Amino acid sequence: MNLTNADSGQLQQWQSELTSRYQDIKAKGLNLDLTRGKPSSEQLQLSDALDGILGSEYTSPSGVDVRNYGGLDGLLEARKLGSQFLDMPAENIIAGGNSSLTLMHQTMAIAHQFGLNGSDSAWNKSADVSFICPVPGYDRHYGVCQHLGIKMITVPMDANGPDMDAVESLVAQDKSIRGMWCVPKYSNPTGVIYSDDVVKRIAQLGKTAHPDFRVFWDNAYAIHDLVEQPKTLANIYEACVAAGTEDSVLQFASTSKVTFAGSGVAFVGASANNLKGIKQSLGFITIGPDKVNQLRHVKFFAEPESLTKHMQKHAGIIKPRFECVLKQLDKAFGDNDLGSWESPEGGYFISFDTRPGLAKEVVRLAGEAGVKLTPAGATFPYGNDPEDCNIRIAPTVPTVEQVEQAMDVFVVCVQLASINQQLSA
Amino acid sequence: MNLTNADSGQLQQWQSELTSRYQDIKAKGLNLDLTRGKPSSEQLQLSDALDGILGSEYTSPSGVDVRNYGGLDGLLEARKLGSQFLDMPAENIIAGGNSSLTLMHQTMAIAHQFGLNGSDSAWNKSADVSFICPVPGYDRHYGVCQHLGIKMITVPMDANGPDMDAVESLVAQDKSIRGMWCVPKYSNPTGVIYSDDVVKRIAQLGKTAHPDFRVFWDNAYAIHDLVEQPKTLANIYEACVAAGTEDSVLQFASTSKVTFAGSGVAFVGASANNLKGIKQSLGFITIGPDKVNQLRHVKFFAEPESLTKHMQKHAGIIKPRFECVLKQLDKAFGDNDLGSWESPEGGYFISFDTRPGLAKEVVRLAGEAGVKLTPAGATFPYGNDPEDCNIRIAPTVPTVEQVEQAMDVFVVCVQLASINQQLSA
Repeated sequence: MNLTNADSGQLQQWQSELTSRYQDIKAKGLNLDLTRGKPSSEQLQLSDALDGILGSEYTSPSGVDVRNYGGLDGLLEARKLGSQFLDMPAENIIAGGNSSLTLMHQTMAIAHQFGLNGSDSAWNKSADVSFICPVPGYDRHYGVCQHLGIKMITVPMDANGPDMDAVESLVAQDKSIRGMWCVPKYSNPTGVIYSDDVVKRIAQLGKTAHPDFRVFWDNAYAIHDLVEQPKTLANIYEACVAAGTEDSVLQFASTSKVTFAGSGVAFVGASANNLKGIKQSLGFITIGPDKVNQLRHVKFFAEPESLTKHMQKHAGIIKPRFECVLKQLDKAFGDNDLGSWESPEGGYFISFDTRPGLAKEVVRLAGEAGVKLTPAGATFPYGNDPEDCNIRIAPTVPTVEQVEQAMDVFVVCVQLASINQQLSA
Repeated sequence: MNLTNADSGQLQQWQSELTSRYQDIKAKGLNLDLTRGKPSSEQLQLSDALDGILGSEYTSPSGVDVRNYGGLDGLLEARKLGSQFLDMPAENIIAGGNSSLTLMHQTMAIAHQFGLNGSDSAWNKSADVSFICPVPGYDRHYGVCQHLGIKMITVPMDANGPDMDAVESLVAQDKSIRGMWCVPKYSNPTGVIYSDDVVKRIAQLGKTAHPDFRVFWDNAYAIHDLVEQPKTLANIYEACVAAGTEDSVLQFASTSKVTFAGSGVAFVGASANNLKGIKQSLGFITIGPDKVNQLRHVKFFAEPESLTKHMQKHAGIIKPRFECVLKQLDKAFGDNDLGSWESPEGGYFISFDTRPGLAKEVVRLAGEAGVKLTPAGATFPYGNDPEDCNIRIAPTVPTVEQVEQAMDVFVVCVQLASINQQLSA
């Protein structure tokens, strides 16, 4: 369906056919949901052995009674597990509670209000504080900035990661900038892996940026591959060490989409200086993380290959859903300009760009036909997608059949909205 | 041993005898610890059945798959469990993560920086913000104020709770005051239960205090009785409702000293207005608490009487330690003015006041003789006990024999320090 070269008679015929198909779909009274970036029950079941895995043995391999208070850094063995996510030494990692969002919020609040490097380094000592946000991105990252009153400045994402020319130019010119959000692997929502060159250039930012500049490197999908030979993400910490900028990056990850969402272990990895700054505040905030649950995770992933094998089981469940989405997109839009997307090899999302000005309309049409989509704009700061074109598709929770059905509807909605727009142009 | 009426010859003889006994003790090379307000291994074992209690059944009674994301308020059944601690309706309770300290810090940070009743209500809109701290009290409460830059104003504790004349006068006169810390039952460290009159007067404070005044009512030892017929604490929430001040009190509790310290469930209970204010910020900070662990606790305490019976087992372990401390204090100081203390019927601490100016010296003497005591001053804001007399005794972790031994040393140290002071006066 190539709208650009079609005459108005052809367009009207398509419009009529699609309107009729859309009405038929509506009549079915569907109730499908592509909004939720969370694991399905089938995936959660993979970790059901977690409860009871301790067999009343509550002492960690290094001799800690995990039932009692203490240990701001988390269990040594849990920090080693974090190493497998963040690819940096366990001594640079704090194993925390159940939520990397909480760790990110706490760390940003500490940097903003108390300073990671003494109280003079607190961002709020400056009247203007802003953060670079690659778009489209993750709404909860934007929420943290918004909550803390930090202004967000967007840069576009492309197939290699953030537009680094734009980032470097901002960092050089705008002295209010104190950091940047990154989801470097299977980026939420576009699914791209930052290229080696992008990683290297991000590691260099610390050389010219404000001394309190911090990249928040949320490696949420570090091990969430769907293919057998996944592309690797370059090691940001090693790149920083090489550039002498290791204080400029804070890494985050969690087991939320590995074991139980909301009942896992979150990690922050950082330089010794940054960890010191974090812990100075963290000591006022908590007596320590849930070490019993950390020990459960340590035992669950005790074998060297167990984490990889576990993630392969997740991939086996998720992959058919991703394939279904991508196949339908390719079939409907592969030969025309009605939409564009990446083909992620991991993560939780597929990001679709409509023609400008159509995302809200597509979400509305799909919603009225019984297919819930993430609200258009959610992938941009303040919920404002200036082009109104980005839609995040989250296919993990529904069954493959439901994804198939939902994508049938999605395709019709995109086509119909595009034709309506073309005809009213 | 009555120093006041003794002549100098008698004092010198006692000094010589005690110095000799102190040297004998030192020679033993003891290594005892009365610092830690945490459960013993024997207590922790009472909850070993927690891990594995779910038997792969991860659905809550009300039908929630606890393994997945969601639910800022916590599980309905966990909130009902919180009701048994806070004595207020489950709908007024959020069941949170593993740390009531974290909930208290978050709530105070929200009140201070974001406001519990819209942004205009944020305490930091005023240049001066201060908090009433009954002393002696809990060092981590003071830490929260210190971290957030909130000035602390002390009022003395007596056998009925905080000196309410002093509190009421401060609230009436000092417009910088935004709240007050309270540990109303088995207060940390004095062990007193606030009298009905004190509870009623605290509930009245909201009538005259600043509209954003909030009592932080940390009911950490709500169910931690050591006697069969414990005195009851009057219900602060009902008193507030009666006074029309229900927005003026925020209640906290946790299972930390009930099941596993650091791996339990924490609760905050508050009016609908306050909960709304808390959740507005909490939604930026977390996707929700660990519901799997909440369900474990719900199942562990499924029977109506199970919480009470469980706490009786704790009491059976702790009580002999408390009796040992109190017996020795009574024997050594019951007939003289070398020290004063309350006789708590629950909680985790016994608080001992030396003659003025001796607490640091007693802690030093005991430390050098192999008995570690909580640093003198820790029970006061900024670590500063102006009278230098308060020492917190925490007898739960050592065995009864160790408590006996440690208290032998403690008594000698208090006697020796007192005589040395008297002779050099």
